[in-house]
Amino acid sequence: MQIKYTLSEDKMPKAWYNIQADLPTPVPGVLNPATGQPITPTDLESLFPMALIKQEVSTEPNIQIPEPVQSIYRQWRPTPLYRARRLEKHLDTPAKIYYKYEGVSPAGSHKPNTAVAQAYYNKEAGIQCLTTETGAGQWGSALAFAGALFDLEVVVYMVKVSAQQKPYRRALMESYGAKVIPSPSHETQAGRAILADNPQSTGSLGIAIGEAVEVALGNKTANYALGSVLNHVLLHQTVIGLEAQTQLDMAGDYPDIIVACTGGGSNFAGIAFPFLGAKLRGEQKTTRFVAVEPTACPTLTKGKYAYDFGDTAHLTPLVKMHTLGSSFVPPGIHAGGLRYHGMSPLISHLVELGLIEPRAYPQLSCFAAGVMFARTEGILPAPEANHAVKGAIDEALRCKEEGISRTILFNLCGHGHFDMQSYIDYHAGRLQDSEYNEQEIAMALAGLPVVS
Amino acid sequence: MQIKYTLSEDKMPKAWYNIQADLPTPVPGVLNPATGQPITPTDLESLFPMALIKQEVSTEPNIQIPEPVQSIYRQWRPTPLYRARRLEKHLDTPAKIYYKYEGVSPAGSHKPNTAVAQAYYNKEAGIQCLTTETGAGQWGSALAFAGALFDLEVVVYMVKVSAQQKPYRRALMESYGAKVIPSPSHETQAGRAILADNPQSTGSLGIAIGEAVEVALGNKTANYALGSVLNHVLLHQTVIGLEAQTQLDMAGDYPDIIVACTGGGSNFAGIAFPFLGAKLRGEQKTTRFVAVEPTACPTLTKGKYAYDFGDTAHLTPLVKMHTLGSSFVPPGIHAGGLRYHGMSPLISHLVELGLIEPRAYPQLSCFAAGVMFARTEGILPAPEANHAVKGAIDEALRCKEEGISRTILFNLCGHGHFDMQSYIDYHAGRLQDSEYNEQEIAMALAGLPVVS
Repeated sequence: MQIKYTLSEDKMPKAWYNIQADLPTPVPGVLNPATGQPITPTDLESLFPMALIKQEVSTEPNIQIPEPVQSIYRQWRPTPLYRARRLEKHLDTPAKIYYKYEGVSPAGSHKPNTAVAQAYYNKEAGIQCLTTETGAGQWGSALAFAGALFDLEVVVYMVKVSAQQKPYRRALMESYGAKVIPSPSHETQAGRAILADNPQSTGSLGIAIGEAVEVALGNKTANYALGSVLNHVLLHQTVIGLEAQTQLDMAGDYPDIIVACTGGGSNFAGIAFPFLGAKLRGEQKTTRFVAVEPTACPTLTKGKYAYDFGDTAHLTPLVKMHTLGSSFVPPGIHAGGLRYHGMSPLISHLVELGLIEPRAYPQLSCFAAGVMFARTEGILPAPEANHAVKGAIDEALRCKEEGISRTILFNLCGHGHFDMQSYIDYHAGRLQDSEYNEQEIAMALAGLPVVS
Repeated sequence: MQIKYTLSEDKMPKAWYNIQADLPTPVPGVLNPATGQPITPTDLESLFPMALIKQEVSTEPNIQIPEPVQSIYRQWRPTPLYRARRLEKHLDTPAKIYYKYEGVSPAGSHKPNTAVAQAYYNKEAGIQCLTTETGAGQWGSALAFAGALFDLEVVVYMVKVSAQQKPYRRALMESYGAKVIPSPSHETQAGRAILADNPQSTGSLGIAIGEAVEVALGNKTANYALGSVLNHVLLHQTVIGLEAQTQLDMAGDYPDIIVACTGGGSNFAGIAFPFLGAKLRGEQKTTRFVAVEPTACPTLTKGKYAYDFGDTAHLTPLVKMHTLGSSFVPPGIHAGGLRYHGMSPLISHLVELGLIEPRAYPQLSCFAAGVMFARTEGILPAPEANHAVKGAIDEALRCKEEGISRTILFNLCGHGHFDMQSYIDYHAGRLQDSEYNEQEIAMALAGLPVVS
């Protein structure tokens, strides 16, 4: 039978862990695209509250979690850590498989860990409205939830084709009181410009970011919120790994391998960074860290490590990261949260340092892993999380081949209840392994900005 | 801020509470429709394992929860009890509002509490396959989940119109490995007879029950499973109220009012019976018990207390209950789990004894309550659960009017993530307060079986 390791609330982390304190070399800074110079806090002040800007560049190892944020975390945290005994038995592996389950949050994923923190700091700074973009809708739902709790207006620019294909995610955001605007819209210059060119545009994450940023820039009481990629977002997610450390202590275990999926990098960082910090500080030497991405959007495995824009419209600062080029549009796989051309600068830096092993899987094998997981462990994962499940299963099968018992920990970052259409398509045999196109990536990479 | 009362696993109930031990007069027995005589255990043996048949008639106060069932319960139990501080503040009420949240189960509702127990006892009895029916899909999903964990084949006859309207629920059941057959089907005599009459039949719960029962009767290794109404089903749900008792002890509180919604009665019984038992035993005198149903299907508030069939096809035994007549088809409101013509005999009996206050609400007011709840407490309830939310809010507002602080406990029996279409319709102003038709109920009641 499955075993659950329940953490009592008094053992919840009181501080987030900041990996920037332990990096052997600092992560390359963000540049102002107009000047090519490092960006200053003032450059960011029209988008983010100063508390988050400070977290973005902090090298303090532990950053206190404000009590009101802890209080809201306690609605669903500590999240359970499970040992997947039924899955182990099904695989007939000597490996021990543990998973941290973040799908118990009201929005169904890990995203509220940062949404609540961002809403808190913005509220404290006197902000009345948060703008953001969303594709698949996990992030938009989480920010809508957090906004409701802090009485903040939330405006979500939702990629038009997603708003049409995922009406249920939109309805969840609206139930929380958020305003959802299909993007491109007539409400912004950025949107109107796109629509003037192409009235039929179905939108993109890049366009939606542009609209959300434009609105935040033009309104002193509005700020912008991002759900992944940035250092402060990854920081907030470390509650996942910090809890898992205590829970594995309870189990008397320590992971040999940690697996998570990577889109922008936040759920991976959340589970991995506290353990990676221990390795960086030399407290522990052997743990391997596996970042799983889709072969359809192989940012870490096929991308270039270079300065690039975070969005297609080139409104963001330049960040050094693994990128497929900001004009690259990945095939329409169902793991929408993993369809991003770039990657968190922190994750990219750690991959370059040889501390994280990237790995790519096609989507059919990930859905097969997810269905096996549902039938053994009883939880149906989100398509993104299926990539982590597949990675963990492969490691467990390698243990079987080699006759070695290793301890595997993976992050089950969300449930699939809002992604049932993808399972319908999978069961009906309608899903394909859409691969990336080498030529498209080469073209997108050719367009990378020149940074002196 | 919201307060969570977390129960440690070692304080989980080890036995279910059987209210039959404390009834002042026994619940009227089930009759064989052919003979009009009380049904015997042997009559039920082709449908249920003997362990469940014994629980159905037991008057033991505490029935041990088998360790393998406890072990699976621990995947998501104990479920949290919350004090709804943000909702209280929003209502500006002196009342204290607590809610028990059953939506944290892998199937998203309270239904796995009995599905796991039923799967266990059937597996122990050597059964290889369970058949059942489902309408909205909560019950079918729960049994599919439980079947996967015990390696039982699960066959779900799903009302055809629901299978078409709720493809996501169907996909969840199939992901767990269950076979979902839109009903009426060509696989049973009952189904073929209906289709011969009307090839376009969209099905009904009554027809689906007939198909599931027929398959179980015709196969020695198959049994039938029911998700509500029966005594043993209500028994298994008492883990909810037993946990809530310990959690309210932690809070130093005791409920003045307990509220839950009623379709077949199982989630209501789950939260209420342990407290009602204390009242029956005279340990406590003042708690009120409010059962909320939809005005569109007013079983307790407008039905007749009489012997009736559980299904439209008249294949089940006769049970004494509040009924609108087995041929009554309620309007298509979105709280599909509350659209049942009958009621659990135990609940009906307790209403007759004056121990439960039934109350009916139209659906628009319930959706409004659910949206208020989502924006204050962060959880979007299932349409069924919205009835309990509405009942609790009304009690809290009465406290405000009267200037009295009472303690209100309600059961939030499931989340609404599979019911987003209803919220889309609600937000778009497309929902109506479909009322029952007096004449239809009168006609259905005129057809009640004559029992001497």
